[in-house]
Amino acid sequence: MRALVFDGKLHLRTDYPDPVPVAGESIVKVSAAGICGTDLEITRGYMKYRGVPGHEFVGCVVQSENRALVGQRVAGEINASCGTCNWCIDGIGRHCPARTVLGILGRDGAFAEYLRLPNANLIALPDAVADEAAVFTEPFAAACEIFAQARLKRTDRIAILGDGRLGAMVALALRGEDFAPVAGGHHPEKLRRLAALGLATQNADELTPGYDVVIDCTGDSAGFAKAIALVRPRGTVVLKTTAAAGAAMNLAPVVINEITIIGSRCGRFAPAIAALASGRFDPRPLIDGTYSLDDGIAAFAAAADKSKFKIVIRP
Amino acid sequence: MRALVFDGKLHLRTDYPDPVPVAGESIVKVSAAGICGTDLEITRGYMKYRGVPGHEFVGCVVQSENRALVGQRVAGEINASCGTCNWCIDGIGRHCPARTVLGILGRDGAFAEYLRLPNANLIALPDAVADEAAVFTEPFAAACEIFAQARLKRTDRIAILGDGRLGAMVALALRGEDFAPVAGGHHPEKLRRLAALGLATQNADELTPGYDVVIDCTGDSAGFAKAIALVRPRGTVVLKTTAAAGAAMNLAPVVINEITIIGSRCGRFAPAIAALASGRFDPRPLIDGTYSLDDGIAAFAAAADKSKFKIVIRP
Repeated sequence: MRALVFDGKLHLRTDYPDPVPVAGESIVKVSAAGICGTDLEITRGYMKYRGVPGHEFVGCVVQSENRALVGQRVAGEINASCGTCNWCIDGIGRHCPARTVLGILGRDGAFAEYLRLPNANLIALPDAVADEAAVFTEPFAAACEIFAQARLKRTDRIAILGDGRLGAMVALALRGEDFAPVAGGHHPEKLRRLAALGLATQNADELTPGYDVVIDCTGDSAGFAKAIALVRPRGTVVLKTTAAAGAAMNLAPVVINEITIIGSRCGRFAPAIAALASGRFDPRPLIDGTYSLDDGIAAFAAAADKSKFKIVIRP
Repeated sequence: MRALVFDGKLHLRTDYPDPVPVAGESIVKVSAAGICGTDLEITRGYMKYRGVPGHEFVGCVVQSENRALVGQRVAGEINASCGTCNWCIDGIGRHCPARTVLGILGRDGAFAEYLRLPNANLIALPDAVADEAAVFTEPFAAACEIFAQARLKRTDRIAILGDGRLGAMVALALRGEDFAPVAGGHHPEKLRRLAALGLATQNADELTPGYDVVIDCTGDSAGFAKAIALVRPRGTVVLKTTAAAGAAMNLAPVVINEITIIGSRCGRFAPAIAALASGRFDPRPLIDGTYSLDDGIAAFAAAADKSKFKIVIRP
């Protein structure tokens, strides 16, 4: 099959082996797959991943022991867990130590004609959720997980740092749940587009300290220090980006101001799909380009352009 | 009066001006004052503080507009707040932006014959709490604040990093509330003494990952990375030390493992005094030396000795 493959460099391959059916797993024909910051990081060495990247997808089940799944239009939880450890029993197989992760850890991903995932990971999509919206399920679930981890109040003053894909997703998720965040960034055109979607926006350098909650979606190690500077004493910083590596940091303000920091990575798909189906949240205006798999390298180049939100590959 | 004064260097002065009575504040004759890590940090430049250090004390009110206070044996909350801002109204004047802090920020402290604090800060001590125990009220309140900030379960596996004064205080506070922490450190003799007080102890290098909660009391910037390495995914790290400044850190594991970090500085005195009075917690075995104010410089040198727990100055 055709697939984008990263082996130290990203290639289009036309002879990549089709995924082989195994017990308990289904084969999905990919309809659309989104490129996110993690995919770009992977092409810079993140997780030392080798294989087909891509983990935001919508597709159609073409082969499965579970007959009810065949022919279904699905999204899929990206963490494939053992199902028997304490994490899996507790319902957070997303932290199963034996997990593989679609397109990120030990399992080929979605920038290909076909992918394979455990049957239990696949979630049928309601007709109300178009492919172009469903492709946002994974990042939207990651954004919505903030509600499960932090106890936000509707009266909280909330700042989001970063006007990229993730920041936009978090902002829309919060607004969809009747919070009133301000999205802070450095890209006037993207801030203008977020404002057109009904969001409060501000140049990130002009935000003033005193926020109850600051959500770092910058993908930049400077974001953490900025978040700590903006949050009030006893406030909460949510870290959504894994890129904050190796910078020199001063944790003294965290202790002096008794700040709570919550690392937040990914979330459950079912509530995210329900929210997409409700129409309270429409991410489709964030799509800035749709590419064929044949143009996958160009799609990655477009996704690296900081003036863009979301680039989608349709195999 | 006699006082230890830090003006870039620590001196004993015999001609330091007595504190002057002001409206709403009382004069306290200091009976005993403990030296803590923050005092040592102050003599190294922390907070750029100049004046009399010392904030852990017990004393007797000798002058006050509030007649009921005169003659009382008291401990005192160290943050002197404005009383009118939102922080003060919310009951956490400890974060009042206009606050002064006894011996730490804009207010002379306890290593002197007399100190001055707002009447509202002074808390009468029950007879059941001896001076030698009461002098631990401030660090014990700081330890107990963990219960208010983190939702600990009795079944949580809890590791404390650091076998110093603060680590010992946190360990005893947790044990007093029927938690079962393990105290991890690098000083065999101190670990032996903590074990003699009924605590589980372990060489910090031999702790194995998987703790639900890790409490960093190391006073060392390496403690944070160690805590992150030991805590389980979705676990909690409590930062109790302000010394973690400027080290290069990798926050990616915080996000990937969705760890919550809680900065924790100081706490309310009343519950700490009640716990001391209950006898569930006796910190007196941690006192390793009592010095006169005249020998204050030697007292600080003893407190800097890492084989010691608590050094007390009796003016």
